[in-house]
Amino acid sequence: MTEVVAQLIEALGDAVSVDAAQLDAAQADKSGHRSGSSPLAIVTARSIDDVQATLRIATQTRTPVVTRGAGTGLAGGAVGGSGEIMLSTLAMDRVFEINSSDLLAVVEPGILNGHFNDILAEQGLWFAPDPASKAISTVGGNIATNAGGLLCAKYGVTRDAVLGLKVVLPDGRLLTLGRRSVKGVTGLDLTALMVGSEGLLGVIVEATVRIRRAVPGTVATIAAFYLGVRDAAASSAAITAAGLQPAVMELIDPHVLRAIDAFHGSSLSQRGAAHLAVQFDGPGAENDARRALEIITRLGGDADLTTDRDEADELLAARRAAHGSLAALGTTLIEDVSVPRSALPDMFDAIADIEKRYGISIPTLAHAGDGNLHPNFIFDGPEVPDEIWDAAGELFTAALKLGGTLTGEHGIGVLKKRWLGDELGDDQLQLQRQIKQVFDPLGILNPGKVF
Amino acid sequence: MTEVVAQLIEALGDAVSVDAAQLDAAQADKSGHRSGSSPLAIVTARSIDDVQATLRIATQTRTPVVTRGAGTGLAGGAVGGSGEIMLSTLAMDRVFEINSSDLLAVVEPGILNGHFNDILAEQGLWFAPDPASKAISTVGGNIATNAGGLLCAKYGVTRDAVLGLKVVLPDGRLLTLGRRSVKGVTGLDLTALMVGSEGLLGVIVEATVRIRRAVPGTVATIAAFYLGVRDAAASSAAITAAGLQPAVMELIDPHVLRAIDAFHGSSLSQRGAAHLAVQFDGPGAENDARRALEIITRLGGDADLTTDRDEADELLAARRAAHGSLAALGTTLIEDVSVPRSALPDMFDAIADIEKRYGISIPTLAHAGDGNLHPNFIFDGPEVPDEIWDAAGELFTAALKLGGTLTGEHGIGVLKKRWLGDELGDDQLQLQRQIKQVFDPLGILNPGKVF
Ligand SMILES: Cc1cc2nc3c(=O)[nH]c(=O)nc-3n(C[C@H](O)[C@H](O)[C@H](O)COP(=O)(O)OP(=O)(O)OC[C@H]3O[C@@H](n4cnc5c(N)ncnc54)[C@H](O)[C@@H]3O)c2cc1C
Ligand SMILES: Cc1cc2nc3c(=O)[nH]c(=O)nc-3n(C[C@H](O)[C@H](O)[C@H](O)COP(=O)(O)OP(=O)(O)OC[C@H]3O[C@@H](n4cnc5c(N)ncnc54)[C@H](O)[C@@H]3O)c2cc1C
Repeated sequence: MTEVVAQLIEALGDAVSVDAAQLDAAQADKSGHRSGSSPLAIVTARSIDDVQATLRIATQTRTPVVTRGAGTGLAGGAVGGSGEIMLSTLAMDRVFEINSSDLLAVVEPGILNGHFNDILAEQGLWFAPDPASKAISTVGGNIATNAGGLLCAKYGVTRDAVLGLKVVLPDGRLLTLGRRSVKGVTGLDLTALMVGSEGLLGVIVEATVRIRRAVPGTVATIAAFYLGVRDAAASSAAITAAGLQPAVMELIDPHVLRAIDAFHGSSLSQRGAAHLAVQFDGPGAENDARRALEIITRLGGDADLTTDRDEADELLAARRAAHGSLAALGTTLIEDVSVPRSALPDMFDAIADIEKRYGISIPTLAHAGDGNLHPNFIFDGPEVPDEIWDAAGELFTAALKLGGTLTGEHGIGVLKKRWLGDELGDDQLQLQRQIKQVFDPLGILNPGKVF
Repeated sequence: MTEVVAQLIEALGDAVSVDAAQLDAAQADKSGHRSGSSPLAIVTARSIDDVQATLRIATQTRTPVVTRGAGTGLAGGAVGGSGEIMLSTLAMDRVFEINSSDLLAVVEPGILNGHFNDILAEQGLWFAPDPASKAISTVGGNIATNAGGLLCAKYGVTRDAVLGLKVVLPDGRLLTLGRRSVKGVTGLDLTALMVGSEGLLGVIVEATVRIRRAVPGTVATIAAFYLGVRDAAASSAAITAAGLQPAVMELIDPHVLRAIDAFHGSSLSQRGAAHLAVQFDGPGAENDARRALEIITRLGGDADLTTDRDEADELLAARRAAHGSLAALGTTLIEDVSVPRSALPDMFDAIADIEKRYGISIPTLAHAGDGNLHPNFIFDGPEVPDEIWDAAGELFTAALKLGGTLTGEHGIGVLKKRWLGDELGDDQLQLQRQIKQVFDPLGILNPGKVF
């Protein structure tokens, strides 16, 4: 046992584990990426004090710390390795306040998004950020990655739902950022800077978040099938351009549709090669859905519309089945480029071109409502082959050329570090590194991640 | 003529002015605050190159630079003084792109918000940030102050409308921050950090902003009158708590209502002491307005409801007349505290208490939909008397105690520096100063402002 681990145990007792299975699990997240060796120990913090104590020891001993929520990240951000302390916030999962008058809640970072939403639902309330991983990811992780999801074109990404944060700095000091009021412009917006900071700047130990009332009225859902993915993308762009604002607009390409059929024994591909699911909510839902249906039909889609919630669940089943079906095909590298919505068809063309030149298929899902695509690379074995990284690199270049970004919602972590400079440029990269240094002068938080 | 001015003229020609009247005007903004002496020169930049050239000279000669949009700020942020270069972005007012498919526009910082909205309106589009000063303030200034306005409870503050920025650093380097896609999480969110940074970090020279389609359907407007301001505040809190989301919800207290009557010869005060204006838009507007009307009536309001746009303009006339009517009473210090919406009645109690103890009246307007109050202090002469600052200080303390903030939308500038530490705490203040240093190591941008 190293001196650092001894100090941690002395200060934190049974919050510290060196159990081999736990340490092993902490070497990976859901990206498939694994670090080369196991971290020193896992501290499962139960309080702000625990986080402060851990970070003080880390600072004194210059030991790197990797903060981890539920470990569902897709960029390798929460992966721990040799010589690192793993700091888990998963057990800090209390809800301190639900305030339906001010539409805000105060929570600890470790609460699962889905669990938090279940509690809110009892009062007719909800928390809008809804990554597809909501059942298994933490609110703190959602904030640290600025998670998006299905509903974010209409209801915003995580950043839009965060009013204030408590953050522990690497030296153990506790900061209170932001506020409880809707508006506020006192000083620089460090709350916004923390959102999406991937564990680089500090540990989020409490969040004051914006919540919403359940949207009243009908929900109207369309499932459409097309001859090709470009048609589906064109429909989605046309729906946005017509001024309609779906709550959900999800696109599935032919590879993914076939994978779903293969895994679930369904026969979706017989109705069409590509699939678009569109859902409207709020008082104008039915009306808007009828207008979207017209656009879809005019652009060659074969579509059903329902205002029944159970039927809607059936229509959306394809989207929900996608991740699991792809995972069954091999190791999956889930990419995450995002482009302006009108560039969605062009981005699909770029993907088709890369597929052809590399002789691979790139099954793709898209949050079409906001131009965020998840192209998937599938291969054998645990390591991403170099050729796949080359193809992914071309994908990133194409997205940047279209005015988009490397990553719409998953973050940089370790997996996209190589391309960071291509998007940010050298001057911005340097500035970002200097800001990291202001928060973390010793460089002990998530070293080797992002920058 | 100093050496610096000579260099500026050599590099920028007739973009540089040392005209006494212009220099004099640059010593003040709309807060009433005036600097002690006139700046060195005004550079009216016409391009990014001009901004870069100015900042390079400033860096070489260690000369402070104050960036200025339209100078409508209420915190003294754009006020220039002795030894400073005034850098005006007002002439950089082009619209480079309006993209109705992707709902974004690319503009220069100097375009007036109202003018930009006029151009957008021709295509059935609009830019949501709507400070009451929209006709006279620039989009760049709105971004630099993270301006709010009447519509922001429903449609967000300026931060929510900014996708990307071009920024010139003090040493003249040009940064491109953010992107054109709706989503993106590559690196730290420096775009968000620039929004509301009050000219401290760099000069905003181009903005990619989110625009919206005109909201279709009826607009339903309510004007309500109450016996007292607490009743009006309670109605507003009850409307929010009922899950209704007005586009506009503005409150006027008895002092302001009487000032309007005095200035315009109206007789609003005869209908009630305090006034609440509420407007709903979108497909559910009429229905929502009827529900709000019920709440208002139940809580003692005497109210009219209309769905006619001309009648609505009449009902909202009181709110629009407020600023001018107050200005007629004397020199006005417009304060800007913001509290959680349910704390609005308590904040009005705190104001009443301060009025009593100081023997003054504090006419107050509120963006009640988001808990942002503008208490006004009125006095004779150009200088804010010490006693008024004492009363304002108590106002800030009360807002902070209620979970709110010193400033909801106007910023810190020079006028609220004294209280900055009370809200941020020492550790955060130090961190913010260090971030400022990363962008501006020589400390030449807006020195003496905010920090
Ligand atoms: C099937 C599946 C579907 C997914 N769908 C989506 C989706 O639709 N949208 C989306 O955005 N993502 C999605 N993800 C990715 C992932 O779920 C999100 O990134 C999520 O926000 C991570 O939360 P977590 O608690 O698992 O964080 P972790 O994976 O544990 O950590 C992620 C990053 O955040 C940091 N971090 C975590 N907690 C804290 C804290 N308290 N303080 C500071 N830093 C912290 C870590 O250091 C790491 O860098 C999906 C993942 C899977 C497996
Ligand atoms: C009658 C009236 C009503 C008002 N109502 C509102 C309201 O409802 N909501 C609200 O938020 N404000 C309101 N204001 C305040 C003011 O209009 C806003 O703060 C506005 O955003 C300032 O824009 P401006 O172009 O005048 O900026 P200026 O006053 O010129 O500058 C303001 C600050 O921004 C900085 N700045 C300006 N341009 C740039 C740039 N290109 N790059 C970097 N920094 C820059 C300046 O250095 C300064 O610190 C009101 C003012 C008046 C007079």
